[in-house]
Amino acid sequence: MKKFINHVDQVLHESLSGLQAAHADILTVHFDPTFVRRTAPRPGKVALISGGGTGHEPLHAGFVGKGMLDAACTGQVFTSPTPDQMLAAAESVHTGAGVLFIVKNYAGDSMNFQMASEMLDIENAIVMVNDDVAVQNSTHTTGRRGVAGTLVVEKIVGAAAETGLDLAQCKAVGDRVNRATASMGVAFTSCTVPAAGRATFDIDDDEMEFGVGIHGEPGRRREPVRPAQAIVDELLDCILTDLNPAPGANVLLHVNGFGATPLMELYLLHHCAGKTLAARGVNVVRSLVGNYTTALDMAGASLTVTLMDPELLQLWDAPVRTASLNWS
Amino acid sequence: MKKFINHVDQVLHESLSGLQAAHADILTVHFDPTFVRRTAPRPGKVALISGGGTGHEPLHAGFVGKGMLDAACTGQVFTSPTPDQMLAAAESVHTGAGVLFIVKNYAGDSMNFQMASEMLDIENAIVMVNDDVAVQNSTHTTGRRGVAGTLVVEKIVGAAAETGLDLAQCKAVGDRVNRATASMGVAFTSCTVPAAGRATFDIDDDEMEFGVGIHGEPGRRREPVRPAQAIVDELLDCILTDLNPAPGANVLLHVNGFGATPLMELYLLHHCAGKTLAARGVNVVRSLVGNYTTALDMAGASLTVTLMDPELLQLWDAPVRTASLNWS
Repeated sequence: MKKFINHVDQVLHESLSGLQAAHADILTVHFDPTFVRRTAPRPGKVALISGGGTGHEPLHAGFVGKGMLDAACTGQVFTSPTPDQMLAAAESVHTGAGVLFIVKNYAGDSMNFQMASEMLDIENAIVMVNDDVAVQNSTHTTGRRGVAGTLVVEKIVGAAAETGLDLAQCKAVGDRVNRATASMGVAFTSCTVPAAGRATFDIDDDEMEFGVGIHGEPGRRREPVRPAQAIVDELLDCILTDLNPAPGANVLLHVNGFGATPLMELYLLHHCAGKTLAARGVNVVRSLVGNYTTALDMAGASLTVTLMDPELLQLWDAPVRTASLNWS
Repeated sequence: MKKFINHVDQVLHESLSGLQAAHADILTVHFDPTFVRRTAPRPGKVALISGGGTGHEPLHAGFVGKGMLDAACTGQVFTSPTPDQMLAAAESVHTGAGVLFIVKNYAGDSMNFQMASEMLDIENAIVMVNDDVAVQNSTHTTGRRGVAGTLVVEKIVGAAAETGLDLAQCKAVGDRVNRATASMGVAFTSCTVPAAGRATFDIDDDEMEFGVGIHGEPGRRREPVRPAQAIVDELLDCILTDLNPAPGANVLLHVNGFGATPLMELYLLHHCAGKTLAARGVNVVRSLVGNYTTALDMAGASLTVTLMDPELLQLWDAPVRTASLNWS
């Protein structure tokens, strides 16, 4: 294993310390229990809290800040954070309008956030994200997995909360975005968890994992690598079958790299996906291309499509200022 | 070779088409000759043009837009663009205040931009960037290489041009930033050029290339991987020996990933570098962490330090709106 680390036990602490130092104007890191919080939560706004295992950076800590999350609870690599982190984060950032937890659907995250939700003495609700159409149940999941579409939920609900929507309304927006979002990806290589010290899975030099999860979990099948256009076409087939867009539907297209795929290839995927969506009568009205929901050093990528309406479009376009998503 | 491509010959065209589709509000791609231009150049402003081989994305095309570059000339992967691209880009974006070429110091780029500079019938100048302190001459270079510090030059000169500085003043700012900037990096893995189809170099499972270039060129030596803090300390030793900062100097610290290194590790490097710089009496007043000057799918990272003064700080902080660097 070749990684920039000092001791395996210190990876999370040192990485979060660097995040804090690099973005002191946006976020503050709290240790023991560990969470990343917006430096200046806005009074009277619903507090948005997400989190999960680390190793998916910039998700979620890179999305803490104005227009997006109020806090992110960070577990060890690929390991759910615990309820004490969620409770401490909620106490730290809530300002009286309640707390909305945005949770990726994995067994550990789901259980821990549910527990925190029940224990928390503040009005709260959960949006469960399950955008991955690859598999129905998987290694770590009952039901579909939450993957790169989580960013879309966090961005749009983040903007909704800034406009003053209340807890129930924010939850409704989040659930609506989740239903309007579908994702699926492929992996060319495995990833290496620092504490494990070796690749999560083996894969041949000419193979890809079709429908892979963001922890390297199996997808639908293992098969030889195909040209980019063929990969994109099958991913979009699965995604559009799930979303069933009306003719002329407007969508957000998010091409997400899993960590080790060059940006050059991600833009090439966007080109292929744009052609296919146009041919199927779907309009790409917004795009996001980059490594946002990663699996450490995995080579691969996913496509996410969100059906947009004027309200969601306005919320997507609203200003955001975080470490890794920033526009005005 | 596992990559998201259709045909090796079409990689650049399809990738640039995706870039254009994803960022139509910011940039326009011109083909034959190929360059990426700001959609709306600002009349009366010095036109800034950079470029080089592709494979380093987001550098340079991802930095075209308000507050940074007016155009980027894109060669094939790791191959210099040609003078006809530079001339066409200059004709396309100049608005009467002259053209400043920002060029990384490699033999091909230097020769081609010099040729374009001489052929161009518009007042122009060149800023040559050579921030890499690893080696004096190298595989593709006479003199030091231009690496991740190029982003710093492009950002600061971009802001200077927006304030109305003339061509000579913009060149002076660029030369000054280049002199105030030093970089050095290490690689854990090679990269794979699509047209070559195999790794650029071989490296053992426990080795790193210390002082690597952004095309996988050799650095100072091959050696066993060391803890992150030890790597950072030696990189900073080389960088600070070159810059010789005064006690209490203010600096920008840019931690750059070469493409396949997780953001988690880049922030960990920032933490290590921050500790060492503090111990040496250097203040980190601005930070940039991420994969900005890449070498395709190479795992590794570089550190860049720029000595900042109040003028440079103001220019660094000025608004920028490009595909990959965006703040207000």
